[in-house]
Amino acid sequence: MPQLRRDPITGRWVIIAAERAKRPEDFVVSQGEMADDGCPFCEGKEKNTPTEIFAIRAEGTKPDKPGWKVRVVPSIAPILRVEGELNRHGKGVYDLMNGIGAHEVIIETPEHIAHLCDLPVEQIKAVIDTYTRRMQDLEKDTRLKYVLIFKNYGAIAGSTMYKHSRSQLIATPVNPKLVKEELAGAKRYFDYKDRCVFCDLLKQEMDAQDRIILEMGGFIAVAPFASRFPFEAWILPKAHSCDFTRMSEAEKTDLAGMLKHTLAKLKKALGDPPYNFIFHTAPFRRAKTAGSWKTIEEDYHWHIEIIPRLTRVAGFEWGSGVYINPTPPEEAAKYLRATDF
Amino acid sequence: MPQLRRDPITGRWVIIAAERAKRPEDFVVSQGEMADDGCPFCEGKEKNTPTEIFAIRAEGTKPDKPGWKVRVVPSIAPILRVEGELNRHGKGVYDLMNGIGAHEVIIETPEHIAHLCDLPVEQIKAVIDTYTRRMQDLEKDTRLKYVLIFKNYGAIAGSTMYKHSRSQLIATPVNPKLVKEELAGAKRYFDYKDRCVFCDLLKQEMDAQDRIILEMGGFIAVAPFASRFPFEAWILPKAHSCDFTRMSEAEKTDLAGMLKHTLAKLKKALGDPPYNFIFHTAPFRRAKTAGSWKTIEEDYHWHIEIIPRLTRVAGFEWGSGVYINPTPPEEAAKYLRATDF
Repeated sequence: MPQLRRDPITGRWVIIAAERAKRPEDFVVSQGEMADDGCPFCEGKEKNTPTEIFAIRAEGTKPDKPGWKVRVVPSIAPILRVEGELNRHGKGVYDLMNGIGAHEVIIETPEHIAHLCDLPVEQIKAVIDTYTRRMQDLEKDTRLKYVLIFKNYGAIAGSTMYKHSRSQLIATPVNPKLVKEELAGAKRYFDYKDRCVFCDLLKQEMDAQDRIILEMGGFIAVAPFASRFPFEAWILPKAHSCDFTRMSEAEKTDLAGMLKHTLAKLKKALGDPPYNFIFHTAPFRRAKTAGSWKTIEEDYHWHIEIIPRLTRVAGFEWGSGVYINPTPPEEAAKYLRATDF
Repeated sequence: MPQLRRDPITGRWVIIAAERAKRPEDFVVSQGEMADDGCPFCEGKEKNTPTEIFAIRAEGTKPDKPGWKVRVVPSIAPILRVEGELNRHGKGVYDLMNGIGAHEVIIETPEHIAHLCDLPVEQIKAVIDTYTRRMQDLEKDTRLKYVLIFKNYGAIAGSTMYKHSRSQLIATPVNPKLVKEELAGAKRYFDYKDRCVFCDLLKQEMDAQDRIILEMGGFIAVAPFASRFPFEAWILPKAHSCDFTRMSEAEKTDLAGMLKHTLAKLKKALGDPPYNFIFHTAPFRRAKTAGSWKTIEEDYHWHIEIIPRLTRVAGFEWGSGVYINPTPPEEAAKYLRATDF
């Protein structure tokens, strides 16, 4: 059973994945190419993954058989597990709990295609539908507080094995530190201004235009003013909304197009770089705490953060939390605007 | 002039190092060996670095000439600069200021030796003396709030060029986010318990013994309970102190020995891994804010954090701030205790 442990000074949680326990000799620093033989994510190889949790599939086809469009399976090396009790407890100055949660892999295409931007818009929309369905399902488990949807593309961004387009979700029994910080920051602004900080930021960016990468339908892609990383890009809905699972069908299609085009620009401009994307959306159980429910509705604004992994994080960043970015976002946006594909 | 920009949601600062501005084609992902010809840090090559700021050198020898033991020079690619005005201002929802600060390189030996642990204890003590002297000097500049001392060892940990043992310091005009979090967390514990959280943690670790790596003189090396990374190690003074510049001469010698032995164990056990270390000490200007001065004295406890860079940080960590560690610290400590060198 993995264990969640809390640092007594900063309150930061870590997951000690003891079942994957690694000894010194296991840390061979490998930068090599990923193995790509026998990909278990391809259509027809369904028996090589754990049993499927969910799929969008052709009528009449059976689970764990061909005929699917998007397929969700448990991670074969889950960092949190569904089975068991949370068993929160203290031990002297320390706090810990069992590693309860979920860790799922969203296989974004039955074909062996590496990059999400190379899929048709309609296929990317099916991926977004799948995210929504999985979040709505996991929300029913009252032990879970948050679902983080993310993608690791390329070895440097944390992907291991098989160049087959996929993303992951991890459901956690605590609200993660960075999520809480973002919610708290947005609330602080709202309390002072009576406006959503993201809405204000959007207006300012649309007026200035110099950090805008792309506008499509109801969405905007922007190189954030305080970009931590070169060519960092955020995708935001123009209309205020705290929760991406409430998108209309038309909005999902718009978002699919936006994601495809932004990722295609990054791929072209930077030579297919490793990258991560992360969905930032409101946590579950908003309604439970009556006081804060309305606030999150009004003050939080869901979005996607895309971070190309071009620079190394060194001692200064680990010690300070201050990031050094050698590419001004205005320059990054200019390049990306000019990139056709 | 580099620029400090603040994210309006989380309050996180980034440094936009515009003078190093990088275009897409500059991000060649290089994992190769470091160049090691013509090292400018070796004795006799003093004219290949910027003019020295400080040195411990033999009596009668001249600045920027041979005869030194430890030498401090400005970074040739400073991320913050000493010259200029802070010029803090807002721009709509955003906040920014000029990148005022200092960025110095501490050359730890006149010989071309790569790893700090291969230097004699007495030489490492001279490095610690140098850190202290530089901090005491920089504290006089009232624009500066904090000095972070850190080391990047190996390309993956952010070192570029030349395997010559050195560390860096960056002085910032804001208290960095992670420093503030640690201070706030320690204060919260103190307010509740009337005891230092680090002192309590030390007592619990010394009673349990299972995460202790090494005890030497007045210092202890421990694998922290909530280690973010495999084989993470913290070095703490057993006696309470918030500020490492106040160490006695005997304590500095003890610390030099402790640092040498802990780093040597990590080098041996993990096959000379890339790593960062970061000094965590109290910020400047404690006395200026009368109310908080006494508090930091009592509730903060300086220490060194050492993080071997064996795993990759992926989308989940970037999105959540929750770290996944595949090596329980109890196992790491057991290995390191058993490692002789």
